[in-house]
Amino acid sequence: MLEEGTFQDFSIEAVSARTGVAKTTIYRWWRSKAELAVDAFLDAVDAKVPFPADDAMPVRERFRVVLRRLSRLYRGPVGRFMRSVASAALADEQVRAVWWDRFFAVRRAVVAQRLREAAEGGEIRGDCDPETTMDSLFGPLIYSLFLRGRPPSDRQMDLLVDRVFSHLEVASKAGESGKS
Amino acid sequence: MLEEGTFQDFSIEAVSARTGVAKTTIYRWWRSKAELAVDAFLDAVDAKVPFPADDAMPVRERFRVVLRRLSRLYRGPVGRFMRSVASAALADEQVRAVWWDRFFAVRRAVVAQRLREAAEGGEIRGDCDPETTMDSLFGPLIYSLFLRGRPPSDRQMDLLVDRVFSHLEVASKAGESGKS
Repeated sequence: MLEEGTFQDFSIEAVSARTGVAKTTIYRWWRSKAELAVDAFLDAVDAKVPFPADDAMPVRERFRVVLRRLSRLYRGPVGRFMRSVASAALADEQVRAVWWDRFFAVRRAVVAQRLREAAEGGEIRGDCDPETTMDSLFGPLIYSLFLRGRPPSDRQMDLLVDRVFSHLEVASKAGESGKS
Repeated sequence: MLEEGTFQDFSIEAVSARTGVAKTTIYRWWRSKAELAVDAFLDAVDAKVPFPADDAMPVRERFRVVLRRLSRLYRGPVGRFMRSVASAALADEQVRAVWWDRFFAVRRAVVAQRLREAAEGGEIRGDCDPETTMDSLFGPLIYSLFLRGRPPSDRQMDLLVDRVFSHLEVASKAGESGKS
């Protein structure tokens, strides 16, 4: 359903008609169209791009996998849907807050935990700030998708991951944490 | 004018009424509301946040100045106007293309030239990719402004600039350009 339309087309009525679930039942679980649409979006992204559970894979490579998959996913209908949610979120603070709380905050909590584990394990510098690091990794993807109209290429994603992690790793090894 | 409203409020009629310039004259120079609004936005940002012309200032510091000023500017009415343009651009490919071509591409051309000069002068690594570097620097600002609803703090902007440039500079000095 999400793959066919936009946030603007999405409605609780249409979901009810499509699924046979009564509108009153839907409203018991989702208070607004925004909550339902964002949860559908979260399901679609989680199904296609989980954070790799393979503990043997270096953290840099796990981010490379996630960012390449996300940028591929966003080239298709999920990216079109995402841009339509973004358009609504930028015009309506309530939609933005729902989207942030139920999608970004949820996915970021998982990613932040992986970064903290990598820091505890000495894989990256101990003073890695997970919030800023996540903005550094996901920001350029959003920038390019929203403003340039397409996500970065695999080559650009690789360059980005290498840039962020070479800083996090080099500084960790060289003990240069005082430098920035 | 831009500081009082949103892209949705903006109209060629209102500009004509406010300035006393005939609508036909405005249409001679700007083919659409989007072109006029984007040019007004470019003027507002250029006036407040030019790229520092001080050649004696290291390139890292020049970016620090620009990013801090941008993130402060975007905390106010210009940021509200920007989000409203973004909302329109994400729903309408023509608005996006006008915004990219007349704002981002114009500002990025100046910044890319500064990065090329810094690379030629040996201040940063010679194989610095200006496009990806600009996405790395401006992406997190856009991500935070659009999705979190506020631009990064000065501290986060500093961390970001230091991360990007410590990679560009360290690699330049150590001759590690083959590493990524």
